[in-house]
Amino acid sequence: MFSVTVREHMMIAHSLRGEVFGPAQRLHGATYVVDATFRREALDADGIVLDIGRAGEQLSAVVAGLNYRNLDEDPAFAETNSTTEALARLIADRLAERIHAGDMGEGARELAGLAVTLHESHVAWASYERPL
Amino acid sequence: MFSVTVREHMMIAHSLRGEVFGPAQRLHGATYVVDATFRREALDADGIVLDIGRAGEQLSAVVAGLNYRNLDEDPAFAETNSTTEALARLIADRLAERIHAGDMGEGARELAGLAVTLHESHVAWASYERPL
Amino acid sequence: MFSVTVREHMMIAHSLRGEVFGPAQRLHGATYVVDATFRREALDADGIVLDIGRAGEQLSAVVAGLNYRNLDEDPAFAETNSTTEALARLIADRLAERIHAGDMGEGARELAGLAVTLHESHVAWASYERPL
Amino acid sequence: MFSVTVREHMMIAHSLRGEVFGPAQRLHGATYVVDATFRREALDADGIVLDIGRAGEQLSAVVAGLNYRNLDEDPAFAETNSTTEALARLIADRLAERIHAGDMGEGARELAGLAVTLHESHVAWASYERPL
Amino acid sequence: MFSVTVREHMMIAHSLRGEVFGPAQRLHGATYVVDATFRREALDADGIVLDIGRAGEQLSAVVAGLNYRNLDEDPAFAETNSTTEALARLIADRLAERIHAGDMGEGARELAGLAVTLHESHVAWASYERPL
Amino acid sequence: MFSVTVREHMMIAHSLRGEVFGPAQRLHGATYVVDATFRREALDADGIVLDIGRAGEQLSAVVAGLNYRNLDEDPAFAETNSTTEALARLIADRLAERIHAGDMGEGARELAGLAVTLHESHVAWASYERPL
Repeated sequence: MFSVTVREHMMIAHSLRGEVFGPAQRLHGATYVVDATFRREALDADGIVLDIGRAGEQLSAVVAGLNYRNLDEDPAFAETNSTTEALARLIADRLAERIHAGDMGEGARELAGLAVTLHESHVAWASYERPL
Repeated sequence: MFSVTVREHMMIAHSLRGEVFGPAQRLHGATYVVDATFRREALDADGIVLDIGRAGEQLSAVVAGLNYRNLDEDPAFAETNSTTEALARLIADRLAERIHAGDMGEGARELAGLAVTLHESHVAWASYERPL
Repeated sequence: MFSVTVREHMMIAHSLRGEVFGPAQRLHGATYVVDATFRREALDADGIVLDIGRAGEQLSAVVAGLNYRNLDEDPAFAETNSTTEALARLIADRLAERIHAGDMGEGARELAGLAVTLHESHVAWASYERPL
Repeated sequence: MFSVTVREHMMIAHSLRGEVFGPAQRLHGATYVVDATFRREALDADGIVLDIGRAGEQLSAVVAGLNYRNLDEDPAFAETNSTTEALARLIADRLAERIHAGDMGEGARELAGLAVTLHESHVAWASYERPL
Repeated sequence: MFSVTVREHMMIAHSLRGEVFGPAQRLHGATYVVDATFRREALDADGIVLDIGRAGEQLSAVVAGLNYRNLDEDPAFAETNSTTEALARLIADRLAERIHAGDMGEGARELAGLAVTLHESHVAWASYERPL
Repeated sequence: MFSVTVREHMMIAHSLRGEVFGPAQRLHGATYVVDATFRREALDADGIVLDIGRAGEQLSAVVAGLNYRNLDEDPAFAETNSTTEALARLIADRLAERIHAGDMGEGARELAGLAVTLHESHVAWASYERPL
């Protein structure tokens, strides 16, 4: 199995609902360093998993939709907390939509799966992985 | 699959028995940067894998039991070498006990698995992963 | 010249006033990984720059006063933007007050200077250094 | 499952054939930070996955065969592009040959698998994993 | 004294002339992770050292002039080796020209100095610093 | 001013005498990631600060004299604690001796200064810098 990973980041405000979050129930924020990993069984004719340039552009586009925002006002989080875990899933699912739509090239349709890791600090991070 | 990781560290002395260890047969030491990863199929009602605050506290408690010690005198390593691999397993197993005892909350009982990585330097690390 | 550095982090929300900030004029947030460096010409009788345990506790205490907050509501930033640069100065100045008050031990009064670096992402950081 | 990872690096020149590579079709170069991960179900009698010293030496030997070279002139890449993905596979396969030949000790024959990750920058990396 | 740092990277091919370089006399390459640090005595009215967005754009523009190239063919290195040290100076000098030309805004004219660090691997880097 | 830095590491056991050290008074250990920085006003005729290969070898030789040892038994620390700060000075002074002895080449005699940083974990490090 092969994989390729590209890194981006975003800077957001949010608050988390539920006693379990303690002081993070207050409005605060985070820099999320976002790693998107694309997996594929075999390389294509060019010797790659996917066009890393397009993968980076698509990741940047998905992240731009969240960056410099207060996620408490984002409809995507009207029903659920914008936890690191939930953000990893949201980004992975949006990348998957773009892959299925052909935005990362025809070859990207042969990807086996996708993982997104969000680093919220130097001592904590969360991941979500899913098939394609 | 989701995962959450928290990081701690410990500073220990030890020696390793067996020709394969070369100069590491002498009493020496290590800083181990310890990453504990908790895996779960679905998020709970709060949108999390587990209470990351409690996970961090439990990891700190487990690491505190080894920190600032000479592991050559620790009964846990009377029969086996305190290699990086064996230390990763010991920490993972102690975290698993705490999860089963409910120390990380009721939700943590639904965790699928656990991985512990010990970084012994910027150029070497070891991991152990197990189901729960 | 000797120095010792300890690392902490904080997660805050804020917005920045002024066209120069572009999208960062919106309410957003950041994880700041905070490095505090203490400089001293000569080591004390114990062979240290200062008690690193107390230095870490004092840095944690200073950071706790900002952590999990919306800095737009912090009186310290009523007149000035809470830029990374300004936050570095605020933390350095608060550490300096504690040093002068003796909170880091008598030996810390012999420190020559102090620097604080705030990493706002894996690709950007800011520092402030001052004498003591 | 246990794993042990060792890190090396190499500095190579190459060019990539195919429109998908854009400016990387020109002769350019890369530092690849190379992580080789060795996996095994159970530890051996010494409490290790394999002799990490020998693993490091073998990784260094494999990397030395590529280091400080123009890969456009390397017969291994006469037919295929020397992409990060393809280089990860080449290094993994050469390590596997050495494991099968006994170069990492008898115990290494019980390894379950192998993964090689090549970091081409602080924002992009690729991996290849295979069974043994 | 305040400073702000932004990070970019470039991937180049080159060879180095002189016995001291050993195998690096052969055509090879490097990824350089490039950190540009801008220093200033006091913050401007916005509370910043300089517009970090423009600083990043200018660093990207300077790096783009070297990226994906064989530096053996770059007139800037006709007379001198393209060592990591010399590349750090070239990038710093080009940034200084842009600062003097006003490309980083009027405020940037009050910068006290500039430093550029090039990381050639996880175990080696070089810096050049100069006044403005 | 130019500088070049090379990285090594060592794994040692030690204990620290004095109440200020708390639990670190017990025999424990550390991995020290060691960065040695060499400074010089102008580059030599080859375009370098010094021969980075020889610098790395000399750093490795100095570190090898401490590695895999219990520093409580090292005569260099009979009178003083082997704190991170004191170790940084010892390594810097031993590198300076080698520079003066010509072990890093004739050009290295023109170095202006030297700094050594020891990282004891991902959250703490210490430095010592001196002229040459």
